[in-house]
Amino acid sequence: MSVSRLGPSALRAPSGRAAVAPFQAMDVMVEAAALEAEGRDIVRMEVGQPGGAAPEAARRALGAMLEEPLGYTVALGLPALRAAIAALYQERHGLDLDPARVIVTTGSSAGFQLAFLALFEAGDRLAMADPGYPSYRNIARALGLEPVRLEAGWPERFQPSPALLEAAARAGPIHGLLAASPANPTGSMLDRAALGALIEATEALGAAFISDEIYHGLHYETPAPCALEHSDEAFIINSFSKYFAMTGWRIGWMIAPERFIRPIERLAQNLFICPPHASQTAALAALSPAAGRELDARRAGYARNRAHLLGMLPAAGLARIAPADGAFYLYAELPEALGDSGVWCRRLLREAGVAATPGLDFDPIRGARFVRFSFAGAFERVREGAERVESFLTKRS
Amino acid sequence: MSVSRLGPSALRAPSGRAAVAPFQAMDVMVEAAALEAEGRDIVRMEVGQPGGAAPEAARRALGAMLEEPLGYTVALGLPALRAAIAALYQERHGLDLDPARVIVTTGSSAGFQLAFLALFEAGDRLAMADPGYPSYRNIARALGLEPVRLEAGWPERFQPSPALLEAAARAGPIHGLLAASPANPTGSMLDRAALGALIEATEALGAAFISDEIYHGLHYETPAPCALEHSDEAFIINSFSKYFAMTGWRIGWMIAPERFIRPIERLAQNLFICPPHASQTAALAALSPAAGRELDARRAGYARNRAHLLGMLPAAGLARIAPADGAFYLYAELPEALGDSGVWCRRLLREAGVAATPGLDFDPIRGARFVRFSFAGAFERVREGAERVESFLTKRS
Repeated sequence: MSVSRLGPSALRAPSGRAAVAPFQAMDVMVEAAALEAEGRDIVRMEVGQPGGAAPEAARRALGAMLEEPLGYTVALGLPALRAAIAALYQERHGLDLDPARVIVTTGSSAGFQLAFLALFEAGDRLAMADPGYPSYRNIARALGLEPVRLEAGWPERFQPSPALLEAAARAGPIHGLLAASPANPTGSMLDRAALGALIEATEALGAAFISDEIYHGLHYETPAPCALEHSDEAFIINSFSKYFAMTGWRIGWMIAPERFIRPIERLAQNLFICPPHASQTAALAALSPAAGRELDARRAGYARNRAHLLGMLPAAGLARIAPADGAFYLYAELPEALGDSGVWCRRLLREAGVAATPGLDFDPIRGARFVRFSFAGAFERVREGAERVESFLTKRS
Repeated sequence: MSVSRLGPSALRAPSGRAAVAPFQAMDVMVEAAALEAEGRDIVRMEVGQPGGAAPEAARRALGAMLEEPLGYTVALGLPALRAAIAALYQERHGLDLDPARVIVTTGSSAGFQLAFLALFEAGDRLAMADPGYPSYRNIARALGLEPVRLEAGWPERFQPSPALLEAAARAGPIHGLLAASPANPTGSMLDRAALGALIEATEALGAAFISDEIYHGLHYETPAPCALEHSDEAFIINSFSKYFAMTGWRIGWMIAPERFIRPIERLAQNLFICPPHASQTAALAALSPAAGRELDARRAGYARNRAHLLGMLPAAGLARIAPADGAFYLYAELPEALGDSGVWCRRLLREAGVAATPGLDFDPIRGARFVRFSFAGAFERVREGAERVESFLTKRS
């Protein structure tokens, strides 16, 4: 193969926009996989995805369609899928939602891209809580937005609050707020009053409210309220990845105010053409009652895992755990004596065979004191992981 | 459902970045579908996708995997798929390509996003030929780039040329050139010498060369040369949509210089997480020899369709057709007397029952004189379409 005629000094370098921080979680995953390849038994509590396959009804529906062309769909998604998603809002929240406002997306990732592009100009400032899903700020930066950190802690249950938002707005204009309830990495939820107050504070600033509801359906006390219960102006991002256990299918949805649908449709036509047809077919069947029964049984499994960990970890020395209202994570603060969570997670992996995610991915500052454990795996593995963490902590104390 | 507390005047409007021009092709598709719903028989020559399903081997491979979790893959794609794509370059071009340079993408759409973000800063100028795939300029604008039109005509076989590029560079800095061979909407190709000269001219400007090779494999005389035959600095975008007949699967790939792989991996982790796992599984099997035989038989079908149209249309009055070296399109110039192609296409659809795409999507200026016919459908339909066009043209003359 010939080499470029440009001398090395003239070679283009990757753009500043490509300067995205790596995920520490990836390093943990790579090392966990390497240890497994050496024959070590590793309890994988670092990955944020359900262990099982898509619901049986979803896999069957796709199997029955494999002789079909499965060509492009329209950009906003199959009409039957949009209607079935709209019906979910009646079922879950008693909301009468026009299917025309439902946009099927290539996972929630595409939903964020479309929402950010449709709502904001380059240079706009988007507030979000730390700790939070790190791709929020990375997608925002790639699309020319400035992420604004709201340092949410124990008093705010790690959620953004009107006070945090208003303080940020005094330091500079805020064009949008992105909130997640249940949140990653904590699992903490905004209750109906807190969500309403936050939306009110956001709209009072003239800013857009984007509600990441990807963990809806995965709650352990009361269901998570939907931002649409408070305002039709909210942008809702959701996905089939978590409750529906379809991570690798890359299929999700967004709900936007009516006047945004056509602009978003045009953006989606150009940026994505359409969401994967096979995944849309499977997702439609994942909304069936049969799949719902299967998925609620899985949630019961997560609940058992959660209860076990919440019983074990505090006794083992991890007493400060963020309110785990939903999702399938525990976000635990390390006692001071245990040092930096990145170092601690590497030792936990190598010495105890448990992979967990250090908090710095989620909170570039205070994350050095936190660790996220995912309990989306099988009960036996979660129990084994908890025992290993306990004995690792006991050995060190 | 409650309404926003904001008064109507305070409602946020869609951003300037969402102001994307609609596709005329979409209007044609919508009207064609409406006529079909009324019971009309419409020959669909407006859609740029193969009529059939994915290769049998691909569908079978996925069917056999449906019991598996199909969770997230690594962001760059399944290692086996990256290796199989690399091997394709040995087979097609005699190139020894490191699989580490292959990035599996969510269709070529994701490839363009990743390439544009990794290569360019906001405000950079990206040259591309008119006529061309309209999403090039729309994705570029959404990501803050300035598209620079190179008005390619009959003398350049509708391809960008060093002279056009250098003229554009005299008017302002050029940071990249995006070329497609075979191109959409024309099907015209750059031969080895023309491609080499264009890459040389681009690199002499210090600009990046992005080669859209999505129609590779669909040629009717000689195979299309690959930009990697000339320069390892070129960015290659390709997809399983066209030759491999997997449009709705949203699966493609990109090849980048080694130093760009890690930055692109991080962008992909954040913007896409991973390409659809089911589609990756199917794509791997689409690269098998059995699938190759099936796909080459399809190309033979396209060749028959093309030969039929090239025999019929000139005699019917559409004598000026761009060099249709590859892909599955004919881009025909309307005789002056036939007026605007948008109006003509609407009449062709309503009066003759043939859907074709007016050229304005591909060339905002000269496109009013051109029409694109896709011949990716079944021979009987293409023959029927050609007869209808002929009788429509004869009736009018």
